[in-house]
Amino acid sequence: MGEFDLKDYLSRRRQVVEEALERIFPAASGLEKKLIEASRYSLFAGGKRLRPILCLAAAEVAGGNIEPVLPAACALEMIHTYSLIHDDLPAMDNDDYRRGVLTNHKVFGEAVAILAGDALLTEAFDYLASCVDEGISAARVLEVIRIAVKAAGYRGMIGGQVIDLECENQKVSLATVEYMHIHKTGALLSASLEIGAILGGGDRERTKAMKTFGHHLGLAFQITDDLLDVEGDPTLMGKTPGSDAAKNKMTYPALIGVAQSKTAAKEHVESSLEALSGFGEAAEPLRAIARYLLVRRG
Amino acid sequence: MGEFDLKDYLSRRRQVVEEALERIFPAASGLEKKLIEASRYSLFAGGKRLRPILCLAAAEVAGGNIEPVLPAACALEMIHTYSLIHDDLPAMDNDDYRRGVLTNHKVFGEAVAILAGDALLTEAFDYLASCVDEGISAARVLEVIRIAVKAAGYRGMIGGQVIDLECENQKVSLATVEYMHIHKTGALLSASLEIGAILGGGDRERTKAMKTFGHHLGLAFQITDDLLDVEGDPTLMGKTPGSDAAKNKMTYPALIGVAQSKTAAKEHVESSLEALSGFGEAAEPLRAIARYLLVRRG
Repeated sequence: MGEFDLKDYLSRRRQVVEEALERIFPAASGLEKKLIEASRYSLFAGGKRLRPILCLAAAEVAGGNIEPVLPAACALEMIHTYSLIHDDLPAMDNDDYRRGVLTNHKVFGEAVAILAGDALLTEAFDYLASCVDEGISAARVLEVIRIAVKAAGYRGMIGGQVIDLECENQKVSLATVEYMHIHKTGALLSASLEIGAILGGGDRERTKAMKTFGHHLGLAFQITDDLLDVEGDPTLMGKTPGSDAAKNKMTYPALIGVAQSKTAAKEHVESSLEALSGFGEAAEPLRAIARYLLVRRG
Repeated sequence: MGEFDLKDYLSRRRQVVEEALERIFPAASGLEKKLIEASRYSLFAGGKRLRPILCLAAAEVAGGNIEPVLPAACALEMIHTYSLIHDDLPAMDNDDYRRGVLTNHKVFGEAVAILAGDALLTEAFDYLASCVDEGISAARVLEVIRIAVKAAGYRGMIGGQVIDLECENQKVSLATVEYMHIHKTGALLSASLEIGAILGGGDRERTKAMKTFGHHLGLAFQITDDLLDVEGDPTLMGKTPGSDAAKNKMTYPALIGVAQSKTAAKEHVESSLEALSGFGEAAEPLRAIARYLLVRRG
């Protein structure tokens, strides 16, 4: 079990996702050319494809194949990409660079960046719906659409983003910061696993275990992300260390200190692994991803 | 047939839609309070509710009841509202007022306005999906979700909006302006009718007739809207006449003159009525709406 080659697994899966995105996403043409160009710019800007990879892994753990789940995996990446484009806007985080390249609005202008985000979000629901063409039942497909809305809307990502904006430059409790992260990033990560499990044919119990795994993974991911901002390697990271502190963002280290943050990350990784205890070999990629968070350097 | 009281019909149907929106849309509470407040501000800012009304009317023409279709009708209004919030942003049309009140970003700030729009769009897909709880088959519900995406995304509203931005201050052909309108406003109007027909249990032929009706209605609506900007009554309109010309927008009167624009509007109304020729009394509200476009003053 310790032999699992995570780096190789992630690189192969990333390739699978890239190819699926290329296959299903339209080429830039016609009068709407600029809109599709702008969408493609951010969609193919070198993300880790973590949400689609988790979705596909969950489908396999649930006993399914990855092929019929690929459109949903792509949809999750599109929702993630739209949220990054909108978060980077001048009215929001006002970022000029992401992953070392200019942000969408710096290249295409604010108006097109807003619309490209809107379009990625909109079209994501067609890709989710299209899983019905892959032989998955309409009832299951509708269920995952509703889970995606819950994770992306008021009760999830957008809700968390508003709380994040409201908390800026304010002294807030650890409970509020945790609530914000569970919504802003945790909800979509967790939904990626839940959606994969449902589309992979998982029963209620397996799906629930996936969701619990995702909840703890999301928090461990956020805490280790905050820790990297304090002690990460800038050459491996997509951003400059210290940028959270400079923006007066409420982070785990700022709230509870580095040592306690590390303990909290470890506990969440352990809880995430516990959620997978009922699964065998098939869950090994998910276990490896969770364990990796404790040794990540970028 | 000439006795149909359109004003009374629209006012009663508007009431039905308002009540449904109040029932299904969450109250502002919790940490996401401001986001829901901002969404409600624009959602309940006194729209005509044209898209939901068309959707419900189409469901009845197809032989269905309006109750199971109400969540979809609300979803269409949410998609329309999100598009108005984003269109009004400083980076887009930069409008301070809409329907006589301050635009969303003037009240809640740009960041929250962007997110409120994002949230309305996202949640709309849950309301569409929720028609399955009203006894409509999952297959039909998935079909309307995909129609909504097509009408709202690249191939519809957002595509049209980008073309509109690209055409600003440029000399463009009538064909391009028509293409832009069919996408920017026509697609969602037409989809409202198609979605209503499908959810109302309509067969393929009836659904297609509804879509054709919506296509011509959308163009007639746009042309008469452009004409109002030239010769409308400012006390009845939500905007100041002459504002299109001031913004150098390519309008029908600017391209083909007032007289020819009137002829074109009349022809589209006639074509829309023709599409309804196979329907009886049940289609009377739709006929009245189409005819009204030729005598509207605001």
